Formats: sequence, structure tokens, C-alpha cells
Amino acid sequence: MALKSLEDLFLHTLKDIYFAEKTITKELPTMAKKAKSAELTKAFESHLEETKEHVHRLEQAFDTLGKKAEGEECPAIEGIVKETKELLGEIEDERTRDAALISAAQAVEHYEITRYGTLATWAKELGHDDVAELLHKTLEEEKAADEKLLRLGKDSLNLKAA
Amino acid sequence: MALKSLEDLFLHTLKDIYFAEKTITKELPTMAKKAKSAELTKAFESHLEETKEHVHRLEQAFDTLGKKAEGEECPAIEGIVKETKELLGEIEDERTRDAALISAAQAVEHYEITRYGTLATWAKELGHDDVAELLHKTLEEEKAADEKLLRLGKDSLNLKAA
Repeated sequence: MALKSLEDLFLHTLKDIYFAEKTITKELPTMAKKAKSAELTKAFESHLEETKEHVHRLEQAFDTLGKKAEGEECPAIEGIVKETKELLGEIEDERTRDAALISAAQAVEHYEITRYGTLATWAKELGHDDVAELLHKTLEEEKAADEKLLRLGKDSLNLKAA
Repeated sequence: MALKSLEDLFLHTLKDIYFAEKTITKELPTMAKKAKSAELTKAFESHLEETKEHVHRLEQAFDTLGKKAEGEECPAIEGIVKETKELLGEIEDERTRDAALISAAQAVEHYEITRYGTLATWAKELGHDDVAELLHKTLEEEKAADEKLLRLGKDSLNLKAA
């Protein structure tokens, strides 16, 4: 598909993050199961609920734009997921696995933060104010999720040292 | 390679970001050439110099740890690069291409921000204080680079609207 304008690029990127969010809803249950720390399992489970809401919000965005909600293959998120799977397969120690799970989840959050940040800016520029608001709401939740993971990561290391 | 401890995971992730930084030094010249805005070209060129310094700093980190500086294939950065190439191939309009280049560069920055953040935390926890300091320095520069791209992105859109 040729992209001829910022509007085209915006729609393409919206499809990219839609694909990414749907991928994440598939990966989070496995991550929750692999976590050793009960707190980390809970964090993944609660982020799964949040992610389902993000998927729903994107569907609202497509609807508002009069477009069909559809995904566009996203090699970036596939790369992050592939890297995570390879890494987890190599880890034997449970606490080290938790550290790797947190690091992987933060990589996903940062991918989403950058994409939602860009999308919200473009939506505003293109005059899609309602959509910009939806995207901004998710952006703030992704930032909060990253902060939470950061804290969990530091806490789990302190526990280990104790 | 089996990872048995946080130390192993730390070294593995250091190799991952070393591979990523080296990949970026190869991609930035192309991005600089593809940019329409002179300011964006300049930003990519100056970030290339910064990235070379980051590679050098990682080599110092490996050296401090008494390890050989070597990369570990990083599917995440490969995914981001693949996605960028596919996207740029579909864009005909120059200003839209600049918007996509900025968005792609920000995705790279965010990948680096998350990895350096994690690595700096782990280095500190593992008692590698000198290495933590090197990693933290690069982390701050990646954050500044992301901020600069954010501004450039907003400015270029305002120019377009003017």
C-alpha cells in the first residue's frame, strides 16, 4: 500500500499498534504463568485486562475514523516477542527469569509509549481530536505500567540481595 | 548459552545492546540521506557520532568486566529496522517520509532507553559501579535524543500546517 500523506501514515501506524496490542494479549498469560513472584504474576494479569481495554479503545478509534479495525503486521513487536522467548528458554534460575520477564515487559511498554506518543501527536495535527484523546489515555496507562514494572524490578532485586 | 544468574543475564543483555548500537551506526547514514529536512539530516548525523561514542563506552564496559566485547543477535532491533525499511518503501511524499523517519528513530531511542535503564539498574545491583555510571551516561543521552526528535517531529508538522 502506497502511503501518500500523513493521514495514510497515521492509519498505517494505528493498524501496527492494533496488531501489537493483540499480540500482547496473547503473550501476557504465558508471562503471568512463567513469573515466580506472585506480585509479578498479578501485575501481568492486571496488565492483560488493561491491554484488552486498549484494544477496545483502538477499535473505537477506527470506528470514529469510519475505518475498519484491522491489524498490519508489526515486525518490531514480533522481534521483541521473539527475543523474549529465546531469552526465557535459556534461563534456569527463577529469580533471574523474573528479572528477564520484567525487562521484556518494559521493552514492550516502551514500544507502545513511543507509538502512542507519535499517534496522539499526529491525530491532533490531523484534527482527529476525539481519537487523540483516546490515544493519550492509553499512552498515560502505558507509562504508568512501565513505572510499575520499574518498581517491581528494583524491589525484586532488593529482595534477592536481602 | 544457559543463563544461571543475574550476572549472566546482565552480560547477555550488554551483548544485545552492543549488537543493537552497531546496527544503528549502519542504519543512521541511510536515514540521514533519506531525510528531506536539513535539520533532520543534521540530527541523524550528530546522533551517529553519539552512537559511535555509545559503542565505544560499551567496549569500555566489557573491558572493565574483563570480558570480550561481542554482540548477541538482537531480534528486537532487527524488527524495528525491518519495519522502518518496509514503511519507508511505501511512502511517496517527502514530508510524510520525514514524519516516518522521526517516528522510527524514536522507536529505536525507546528500545535503547528501556535496555540501558535495565542494564544500569542491574550493574548497580551487581556491584559494577563504574559500568553503571557508563550506562547511565548513555541512558541520559538517549533520553535527550528522544526529546530532540519529539521537538523536530512537532516542528515539522507545524511547518506543514503553516
